[in-house]
Amino acid sequence: MTRPGLHVSELDTPALVLDLDAMERNLARMAAYAAGAGVRLRPHAKMHKSAELARLQLAAGAVGVCVQKTSEAEALAAGGVDDLYVSNEVIAPAKLARLAALARTLRARGGRLAVAVDHAEGVARLGEAVRAAGAEVDVLVEIDVGQGRCGVPPADRDPLAAVELARRVAATAGLRLAGLQAYHGKAQHVRAVEARRAAAAGAIASARATREALERAGLPCPLVTGAGTGTFAFEGASSVYGELQAGSYLFMDRDYADNEWAPSQPAFEHALFVAAQVMSAGQGRAVVDAGHKSHAIDSGLPRVHDPAGRRRFAFENGGDEHGILRPADGGPPPALGERVWLVPGHCDPTVNLYDRYVGVRGGLVDGRVERIVAIDARGAVT
Amino acid sequence: MTRPGLHVSELDTPALVLDLDAMERNLARMAAYAAGAGVRLRPHAKMHKSAELARLQLAAGAVGVCVQKTSEAEALAAGGVDDLYVSNEVIAPAKLARLAALARTLRARGGRLAVAVDHAEGVARLGEAVRAAGAEVDVLVEIDVGQGRCGVPPADRDPLAAVELARRVAATAGLRLAGLQAYHGKAQHVRAVEARRAAAAGAIASARATREALERAGLPCPLVTGAGTGTFAFEGASSVYGELQAGSYLFMDRDYADNEWAPSQPAFEHALFVAAQVMSAGQGRAVVDAGHKSHAIDSGLPRVHDPAGRRRFAFENGGDEHGILRPADGGPPPALGERVWLVPGHCDPTVNLYDRYVGVRGGLVDGRVERIVAIDARGAVT
Repeated sequence: MTRPGLHVSELDTPALVLDLDAMERNLARMAAYAAGAGVRLRPHAKMHKSAELARLQLAAGAVGVCVQKTSEAEALAAGGVDDLYVSNEVIAPAKLARLAALARTLRARGGRLAVAVDHAEGVARLGEAVRAAGAEVDVLVEIDVGQGRCGVPPADRDPLAAVELARRVAATAGLRLAGLQAYHGKAQHVRAVEARRAAAAGAIASARATREALERAGLPCPLVTGAGTGTFAFEGASSVYGELQAGSYLFMDRDYADNEWAPSQPAFEHALFVAAQVMSAGQGRAVVDAGHKSHAIDSGLPRVHDPAGRRRFAFENGGDEHGILRPADGGPPPALGERVWLVPGHCDPTVNLYDRYVGVRGGLVDGRVERIVAIDARGAVT
Repeated sequence: MTRPGLHVSELDTPALVLDLDAMERNLARMAAYAAGAGVRLRPHAKMHKSAELARLQLAAGAVGVCVQKTSEAEALAAGGVDDLYVSNEVIAPAKLARLAALARTLRARGGRLAVAVDHAEGVARLGEAVRAAGAEVDVLVEIDVGQGRCGVPPADRDPLAAVELARRVAATAGLRLAGLQAYHGKAQHVRAVEARRAAAAGAIASARATREALERAGLPCPLVTGAGTGTFAFEGASSVYGELQAGSYLFMDRDYADNEWAPSQPAFEHALFVAAQVMSAGQGRAVVDAGHKSHAIDSGLPRVHDPAGRRRFAFENGGDEHGILRPADGGPPPALGERVWLVPGHCDPTVNLYDRYVGVRGGLVDGRVERIVAIDARGAVT
């Protein structure tokens, strides 16, 4: 079994491997960026789903973490995380009751719970649940700054929607109007820096207009929160966003690495890998034991990573349990039993396939397992 | 929490729901087909990953089940399944030692373990592990009948490869040559019946030629095993295949339902659903709380299913945790809090996201939870 001290070449495969050295460098770079930019960092824990990694982020200066689901919040709270923001709408009364109970628990521990809203009915239900539990929560009004999913229209598209919803929040006992949720997910993977900057600029302008509309209406807007790994440097320099929610920076998946990056932005390294092994070979191809039950393919296929930097292979989807490798450098395919490292296309749903990370110290060529890191909120979709 | 007796309208969402009535009809239809066709049924349990469902299949006449991974075999054996076939290559010595130990355990329980091979090195390693454990396993020589993944070339493409490998198996102490593994995965989703029949015919011809080559070489070939839900009626009528490995028939995903089906084949119903709920609504769309952390999208997006048969909605990918619904029938989008049923694009990797099925009796409109069914091998990728 996978135990501390095991050499990377001995790992059972497939395994979800964290290069701890690379992860810690990413952690430090983002913490330094946020401190330098004078913005709060509240990384999105929907990405890593791990209380241990959230605690590392908090120790490095993060003010708390975001989650997307009630059950994620519960799992991370159980793992010792006290400042949680559900950056998403919650509507089901049973879930709202659980959230309200959690808010009480966190408050008793000196922490807090926040949640996003985008509908008057959601505000009413949340208020009811919170009062029934004798709790209190911070509420962020979500505006749709380009994602086309949740959120009310921002003030530059509809001068009333966000103001009216914020007014309801402010008027609801048990709820504290904490500001605006303004996340433009689609902007994160716009490849060219200038096009990505332009997409972020649109979100920033909408957030600014909405904050000003709230203030004109006499409503407090202490915080605008949002941004992701692709755009955080733009929101961070905007003087509009007070809090950044980037999460993927900690692991850097293949899809983010495919972006063009401005030299002025902090550079992040791949820290998350799927260790795989050739289990069939011949006819110019090698078949590895990792398919899309071992890595998510919603953002495309994994990239084959040679830690020694010598070989290049193209990865083809071989189904649920197989991947097909072909040499991209004129050499032979990897041999039967050979270890192969994959950089997942998208870290979040890949992590959600595993119960634990294998934390490796000393690199992927000659490192050893340092510790196993639990993925506390694996499968927490409710 | 989700407990027996709960009305379907009260389910916490997202939930992976089994319509037990529909599943049992699918189970009976396939059992009747296999009995009528005079072929053995060994359903692929990589699809449902559940010992309880495997035992239902055995009780309905299946001779055993297939799995794809060593850890799947271990999980199902722990759940009381005694006849297991790893229809895939296993190369890592540590895994082979586990398989050999499992083979001993199953044999002591009156069952058996079988495994596929496609390489001389794999045969040698398997033989070594089996002898070290004092065990015995059945071995199927995998031939590549069109999938282009694992397997040696069949005899109509290479007259020697399969015969040589089979000879090695027969000559290896502890291994019993049990026949041929011949699965054409790509044929399963060829949409038109006649094109699918042609693809299966190619696989059947290759399997026949290889069986004859083995017999000419004086090697036993007691069984050809393979086929999936898309083509089983062709292999079943071939007089070449003695065993069918179809798995998805039990649940029927959206991708299989998109096939054209011959009237002569047994018809299967959707039995697997993701229950979701609208958590944001407005501007002509509804956003549900299920994204691709709640259903796999490798074979495309889920279809929205209205159990009452009244409404039609188009599903758009909204990311990891969201789905976007738009009316496809001119009506309004579903309202905040409304329940929505999704038929997953691909059942196997969708099941792998959940720890349990919610088994519902009496349909999705007015049924109730009958029991929770464990997904024992969830995440069993090693």
